[in-house]
Amino acid sequence: MRTYDIIYKKRMGQELTHEEIDNLVQGFTRGEVADYQMAAWAMAVCLQGMTARETADLTMAMARSGDMIDLSAIRGTKVDKHSTGGVGDKVSLVLVPLVAACGAPVAKMSGRGLGHTGGTLDKLESVPGLRVERSSQEFIDQVNKIGCAVVGQTGNLVPADKKLYALRDVTATVDSIPLIASSIMSKKIAGGADAIVLDVKTGSGAFMKSLDDSFRLAQAMVDIGREVGREVAAFVSDMDQPLGWAVGNAMEVSEAIETLRGFGPQDLEEVCLALGAQMLRLAGVAPDAAAARKQLLRALRAGHGLNKLIEMVEAQGGDVNYIRQPVSLPRAAHIVRLAAPEAGYVQHIEALEVGVAAAMLGAGRETKDSVLDLGVGVLLRKKVGDQVDRGDTLAEIHVNDESRLAEVQERLLGAYRIGAEAVPKHLLMYGLVTEAGVERF
Amino acid sequence: MRTYDIIYKKRMGQELTHEEIDNLVQGFTRGEVADYQMAAWAMAVCLQGMTARETADLTMAMARSGDMIDLSAIRGTKVDKHSTGGVGDKVSLVLVPLVAACGAPVAKMSGRGLGHTGGTLDKLESVPGLRVERSSQEFIDQVNKIGCAVVGQTGNLVPADKKLYALRDVTATVDSIPLIASSIMSKKIAGGADAIVLDVKTGSGAFMKSLDDSFRLAQAMVDIGREVGREVAAFVSDMDQPLGWAVGNAMEVSEAIETLRGFGPQDLEEVCLALGAQMLRLAGVAPDAAAARKQLLRALRAGHGLNKLIEMVEAQGGDVNYIRQPVSLPRAAHIVRLAAPEAGYVQHIEALEVGVAAAMLGAGRETKDSVLDLGVGVLLRKKVGDQVDRGDTLAEIHVNDESRLAEVQERLLGAYRIGAEAVPKHLLMYGLVTEAGVERF
Repeated sequence: MRTYDIIYKKRMGQELTHEEIDNLVQGFTRGEVADYQMAAWAMAVCLQGMTARETADLTMAMARSGDMIDLSAIRGTKVDKHSTGGVGDKVSLVLVPLVAACGAPVAKMSGRGLGHTGGTLDKLESVPGLRVERSSQEFIDQVNKIGCAVVGQTGNLVPADKKLYALRDVTATVDSIPLIASSIMSKKIAGGADAIVLDVKTGSGAFMKSLDDSFRLAQAMVDIGREVGREVAAFVSDMDQPLGWAVGNAMEVSEAIETLRGFGPQDLEEVCLALGAQMLRLAGVAPDAAAARKQLLRALRAGHGLNKLIEMVEAQGGDVNYIRQPVSLPRAAHIVRLAAPEAGYVQHIEALEVGVAAAMLGAGRETKDSVLDLGVGVLLRKKVGDQVDRGDTLAEIHVNDESRLAEVQERLLGAYRIGAEAVPKHLLMYGLVTEAGVERF
Repeated sequence: MRTYDIIYKKRMGQELTHEEIDNLVQGFTRGEVADYQMAAWAMAVCLQGMTARETADLTMAMARSGDMIDLSAIRGTKVDKHSTGGVGDKVSLVLVPLVAACGAPVAKMSGRGLGHTGGTLDKLESVPGLRVERSSQEFIDQVNKIGCAVVGQTGNLVPADKKLYALRDVTATVDSIPLIASSIMSKKIAGGADAIVLDVKTGSGAFMKSLDDSFRLAQAMVDIGREVGREVAAFVSDMDQPLGWAVGNAMEVSEAIETLRGFGPQDLEEVCLALGAQMLRLAGVAPDAAAARKQLLRALRAGHGLNKLIEMVEAQGGDVNYIRQPVSLPRAAHIVRLAAPEAGYVQHIEALEVGVAAAMLGAGRETKDSVLDLGVGVLLRKKVGDQVDRGDTLAEIHVNDESRLAEVQERLLGAYRIGAEAVPKHLLMYGLVTEAGVERF
């Protein structure tokens, strides 16, 4: 089986066999298939597509390219959750303890932020003492003992995906639905998930800009799940403005704690309830999503989610006083007001720009080796649909190093679009794709 | 200008600007654009195509990536000739001296053979003493003095094409018409040609298997010529069987000499006359192709072409006695007959297989470093349309090392298809594409 022939076959728009895909991926992982061959193949996939079967084969070939985490020692159905990434997306911080509090085990491996999107691990590390590097055994033991854990990747997971992603990133082959779907799903499967709830973000601040493509990606991942025997529920949700108010590590932890207290921003709570309901349903803890949602709301109101977060932070070595009194979390030295330059209604907030602005303050990494400033960030005071007068505070800039402040202010002002007409409230959740079909809200 | 954006633009099917193509090609030549980026771009070109303007820009960017030969010191219009390659294609050996004998200067840089196709330089080196390595000055002086020269490449010509071709060869991006057309034309333009006559071979033994694709390639090269100010005439001619009778270095030189004596195979003579007529027309030596053809025939009958070959061999240090008495050229020790296994008509001779068989005897290179056996080869005694009886000689195998003889015999027998029905004579020349339009014969 020659790599040349595999590339040529895909170039001609033909369906590759299981063996061809497996050979290509394993050869690439071992360095026998050259980067330039894989790049040509990836471009052919971008332009010719892949069938659901091919996409599932690619997913499993990548999942098997390194270690496969065995979570069978954890009792119950392990449901993982993944978001395609957005700005202000602190859902995992709320969802993991809340779902665990309702009785579904959550063994979550998370990542770090890069560019304009934050990472759950970075946010958690705002809590002094908290460790995210755990051995597999510690990880499993913690989930069995308290019901949840959020840790960094252990072992050598999906090296094929790491290599392929780095290559796609420099060859204009990133935005291909089968390649994105298999990249996400291979990591979840190698991570040991029995079932997966996905949040496909859509809009200007998301990876997927169009609603149709977002539904296609959701469908592709549900299809992979069906082919490989993992139940999948994939939401399509809005990222035309940041989620919640806070963008920045410790600021997002505070907001997550507020949400677990029942005082969080409504959009964040709604996303958590929707995703959580599917997680409980797939874990078999609730008979259906409606019952699961009631259960989640009860747990939230009763403070069970917050208690579970405290248990988790404690189990991972963090100082729980910071959760009980979030005001003591890292804070910026200065808060600078961003004033509305005119009166009107907020029409749009370009999430990407807000993310970049926060990163410039030190909340995000410009390169892999950047050191984060955990206390800084942006707090949105006005969101889409809100009416503002001239001079009203649109947002607060929480800053330590003011050297780039003017640039940050300019970027944030540019992110806000204010117009004379009132705008209808954005839809937050656009729909849900499951094995039962597509539901548009 | 980011390479990523250039790749992405082509992926989206958009037309690249002159500057974008130039940046890409120069960056690739200097090693700043990575192989994997160029491979992804080449795949995007295969699937999205290029406009005539883009193809011309690519051609000139590649031509300018290294040395450009300046032939302005040679008087007259320099017309180059190029064949896309076939088996038994010894046209240049006949055409160069014949056209020069009619008064058009021919300053030709040729290549060596690889795989199943032979190279003009290897063939010429069958003549003891003949040197094909000449300095630019020697090359120009010889053409000014006697009217023609055939030499190996001097200087660092089209390094971008060399690099890109090597990459296309392993990434399944070879058979793209804009990429093929720009590769051929960049070399001819860097070689200093004022006008170019092309022979696009079509059929099972050629690079282009389909007649439509062959005309498309011919048109693409004429279009490049129009865009960059070089007049181009491109024939589409048959390579469904080898050209002439001989396949093998010295054997092909003998056949070329026979042709210049007026006793060559008819198909070879016809190709030489057709191409030569366009060369004389483009050189401005004859008013039109019909007049040029008469001039060529007169020169051929009068032996002027042969005399010019003798002059050229002498000028390049070769022993002209071998041209006067070709029987003294290198010869194989044994001639083995290939007998027809059944009676009937020759329906087809798979040129590729004949070329591979000759290479196995030692006439061709299996790798770049193979040493050639100049005397060996295959002499076809029956060609398509010929009637044969069982036991008739289909071909002669001229062999020194008999270790692979059985394999060669089997391959040659497999190359011949003999059937009961008489077959009409193949068309030899399918058509001609010039700036005036497409003429199908």
